[in-house]
Formats: sequence, structure tokens, C-alpha cells
Amino acid sequence: MKCSTETNICIEDVFQAAKTIEPYAHRTPVATCKSLDDLAGCEVFLKCENLQKVGAFKFRGACNAVMNLSEEQASRGVVTHSSGNHAQALALAAKLRGIKADIVMPSNSSEVKRAAVKGYGGIVHICQANEKAREELAAELVEKTGGVLINPFDNPFVVSGQGTAALELLSDFNDLDAIITPVGGGGLLSGTCIAAKGLKPDIRVFGAEPTGADDAARSLEAGELIPQTGPNTICDGLLTSLGKLTWPIIRDNVESIFTVTDEKTIEAMRFFMQRTKMLIEPSAATVIAAILSDQFKQLKGIKKIAAIITGGNVDLDNLPW
Amino acid sequence: MKCSTETNICIEDVFQAAKTIEPYAHRTPVATCKSLDDLAGCEVFLKCENLQKVGAFKFRGACNAVMNLSEEQASRGVVTHSSGNHAQALALAAKLRGIKADIVMPSNSSEVKRAAVKGYGGIVHICQANEKAREELAAELVEKTGGVLINPFDNPFVVSGQGTAALELLSDFNDLDAIITPVGGGGLLSGTCIAAKGLKPDIRVFGAEPTGADDAARSLEAGELIPQTGPNTICDGLLTSLGKLTWPIIRDNVESIFTVTDEKTIEAMRFFMQRTKMLIEPSAATVIAAILSDQFKQLKGIKKIAAIITGGNVDLDNLPW
Repeated sequence: MKCSTETNICIEDVFQAAKTIEPYAHRTPVATCKSLDDLAGCEVFLKCENLQKVGAFKFRGACNAVMNLSEEQASRGVVTHSSGNHAQALALAAKLRGIKADIVMPSNSSEVKRAAVKGYGGIVHICQANEKAREELAAELVEKTGGVLINPFDNPFVVSGQGTAALELLSDFNDLDAIITPVGGGGLLSGTCIAAKGLKPDIRVFGAEPTGADDAARSLEAGELIPQTGPNTICDGLLTSLGKLTWPIIRDNVESIFTVTDEKTIEAMRFFMQRTKMLIEPSAATVIAAILSDQFKQLKGIKKIAAIITGGNVDLDNLPW
Repeated sequence: MKCSTETNICIEDVFQAAKTIEPYAHRTPVATCKSLDDLAGCEVFLKCENLQKVGAFKFRGACNAVMNLSEEQASRGVVTHSSGNHAQALALAAKLRGIKADIVMPSNSSEVKRAAVKGYGGIVHICQANEKAREELAAELVEKTGGVLINPFDNPFVVSGQGTAALELLSDFNDLDAIITPVGGGGLLSGTCIAAKGLKPDIRVFGAEPTGADDAARSLEAGELIPQTGPNTICDGLLTSLGKLTWPIIRDNVESIFTVTDEKTIEAMRFFMQRTKMLIEPSAATVIAAILSDQFKQLKGIKKIAAIITGGNVDLDNLPW
């Protein structure tokens, strides 16, 4: 892939990100599962970001963004709004750099998630449970503290940081035919495009998305960014729309987006946990549901596919079955 | 450790077992968990036998036993009675050797477990849910088929097979101060003694056992084998008493056995799953409960301990919380 003139993020940025986060992030293992291969009809390589720091790939991007702040910026701390894995990831990255992290979380976020953010040293600010309230309180904090707002996906350091998972995959397995990741805001999928196509231009890149939050599939089909309105899915990591930065990279590099029902996702999640003995969260299970779909079986020429297993932060008191 | 004259199982047998099972068994990874280390006050190395074939260390011993049958013995097939992981392990080992496995399972064993045994090609025979009925039906099958009875722990090839997990651990980490395993029939703990003490005579070996099935702790204290009567614990893999073969090895090599309540085991299981993102079954969680106990904290001189995480076959519909 050439450097996108629109986004100006290149494979070199991913190499740089890998170097930056190497002292902090895990080089996660790649697992395989014979019964999954049998059902999928091809070899599936599972990049275990559920075993990443904070239990999710999000740590890669957050860490790269935080470590790339200038001394002056860092001294002012970081700010974000998130109810999910980005909140924990940013809190931990900030802690590792020894700076402050102000995290806006909605009033309906679970006590467990708030405790996790606090556990990593983040300062939690509760707001009303809507997008507007979150953005307003984050803006207010930026205004007050001078902290740097770190968007969970629409940030070039976040995108190149997320690309390091695919970089590791391809340096371990250079004969992959394809790679698939879940898609929400598109940080991971766009980073994966840059890394995978940069290292191996003929590799095929796919996304997996819940039918109840299918803006990426609809955008890719229409050729223009169609934001998500009223998402409805159990996949709480995939509710957001693609960003201005991530969309053109996805548009230019992704072959197709598989949409999967929550029912199929839950079935895939259960199967995956039983067979691999690893926890995954619903958002992560979308790629397994995609690989087990009829649509996937109709693709030709895929003998080896890697799936990025994005996170393992599942609520053990509320398994969805 | 010298070869026990009583049992005649040596480190050489474990080396041989490692060679025998190498084409079939996984060399399982060793995980670490910072929050566990912090709570334990030492470094804990988790040998992930939950990621072993059939989801449990039992495959090591069963595979070694099956592969060591003579051609003539093998032609008659194998027989066992088990409601748990040994049943699946023996069925898979037999399948890999291309021979028949008759598995006696009690009428109260779950449909999931029976299906798993059948999935590995085992022939399931249902009997009444008591020890006598199990033994009688197994004996009947041996009589009828000429099959070889493979005891889940009191078999020298099973013991040396289970020892291969500790062999791998010490070849990866030669500076361990101690190693701990759960103890039921004692196959894993005795195999661990032979491997660990054989490679590193000053290593300390511990067991972990439910308070509701504490025959190993009581036997070690009394200096004589005291069989378990009326076990009462959630740890369904640790109900049996030590065997005639495993007891003297444990007596001569184990420093002490930690007894842990089911309450502490469930707490440890939940903590482990949340933090490591891996599934474990209650029996496996006993070692985590032991490491987190006050009794463990009182031990001096342990900076690095390995814990064998014995299995991950937990029922996702009936998590114990």
C-alpha cells in the first residue's frame, strides 16, 4: 500500500509504533484450534489480544499515543471519554509515563469498569449517559487542565499503534492469505490495513461487524461514510461509527465487511471459549462468527487466515447465554 | 531424588515419557500475571495445562500409557472408568493409536462430558453412580474384551507421563524455588516429584487439596495412607484417594499439602479467570487459593514458584458464583 495522501499514515509509522510500545506491551501469542479449523475449512490463526495488557488491543494504540506526546504535552496529562477498553488502556499508558489521565465515563458504566480505570490510576469523571454529555465534559476537562484529548480511534498514533498486532502476525506467519478484525471506529481495522498491506500487498483484509451497528459495511458498499445511528448490539466495543481518519484507509484497502447477528456472535463466543479455554468479549467473537458464516465459505483462495481476537473483558456474572 | 525402591519410577522414565508423547501433546505455555504476583508476594509461573489437548494435563499420562502398550496389548484396546478428564484423555490417546477405548461413566455424569468422550471416539458405557458399580462394569469389560485397564493415577506410565509438565517447566525456568500442583489420586503430584526433584534436588514440592477431600494432607501428617471417605467438594477432579503407587512418592518428597476451602477456591477461580482471561476448572484453582493463603505467606525463601494449572473444562452454564 502506498502512503495514503489523505491520511499520511505509513507502514513506517507502524514500525515506529512497534518500537515505541515494545517495552510496555505484550507480544501476544498466536493460538490455533483444530475444531475451529475443521468448521471453517481453513487454518485460522488467533492473535490473542485478549491476553494483551488491560485485556484488549486498545493498549497498543493508547500507549503509542501517550509515549509520543512531547514533554510539554505530557506534563498537562491526557483526557478521554470511554466506557470501555480505551479508558483502561489510556489510564495504564498514562500511569506508565507517570502522567495524569482524566477519564469521562457515563453514569451507566459498570462499577467493575470504573474500578479497573481507577486501579490503573485514572481519575474517573461521571457524566450523563449520552454522547453529548461525554463530549462536553471531556472538552471542559481539556479546557480546565490543558490535557491532551486522545480519541480512541481517530488519532494517527492510535491507528499505527493498533497496526502493530498485524505486524507481529505477519512477522510470525508470512504466508497468510487474509486477515480479519472486528470494526467499530475502525482504529484496529485501518491500522491492520496499513501494516498488512504494507508488508504483503496481496494480503486480503476483511472486517466483521454486528448487523445492529453495520455502518462500516454500508459505508463500504456505498463508497461514502455513512455514520451509525441508534446502534443495537451486544458488542459494546463496536457501537461507534468510522472516523474521518479511519474511513478512507478502510475504503481503499478492505475487501469486504462481514455482518453478523448477535445470535451468531454469542454462539461463536461460547464455542471459542469452550474450545480454546480463553475468555473473549462479544465484540471479539464477531470475527469467529464471520469465519464460520456461509458467506465466508463462499470466498475462494483462503487457506490461512488470521483473526485478531480483540479483547477478553467479559463480565463473568453476565455471560450472554 | 533416588529411584524409589518402592515404586521404581525414575527421572529417566519421565524423559522417556516426554519423548513418547512429544508428537501428540502440546508443550503448553507458561503464563504470568502481575496482579497475582502482587497478591502472592512472589513470582508465580502458571503452567497452562488447561490449554493441553482435551483441556487437561491428563492427556500426558493417558497418552504415555497407551503408547507404551505392546502391539498385542494394544490390539485388545483399553478400558477405564472415569467421569472426568481421564475419560476424554484416554479416548483421544486410544484414537491416536487407532485402538478401541471402552469408558465406563456413571449415570450422573453430564451429557456434555459423555459427548466429549464419544467425540474422541470412545465407547461410553453407563453404570450406576457409585464406585462399586464403576469398578464392576470396568472389570466385566476387561473380562469380555481383554482390554487393558488404565488406572487414572496408579499406573507407572501415567505417573511418568504427568511428570513431563514439570520437566518442561524446569527446562524453561531452572531457577524455580518451588512447584505446587493439585492432588487427588496423586498422579500429577507424584510425577512432579520425580521430575522436579530429579532435575533439581533442592526444589520444594507442595500440593493443594480441598478441605472436603483432604486425605493427602492427613496422610502426609500421619505418615501413613489414610483413604478418603465421603469427599465433599466442588473440585470434581480431586475426589479420589491417593494410590498405592503415588502415596510413597508423595510421602518421601512433598514438603506439605495446603488445604483450601471451596469458598476460597471459587474466589481464586474467579480472580484467575478475570485476570488471565483463561478458563480454569475448580480443581485447578486450588493451587491459586493455596498461593494466596496466609499459610503460604508464612513460608520463607520462595521467590519463584510454579503452579500447574491442571484443567480448563469448566461448565460455562454453571459457573459456581
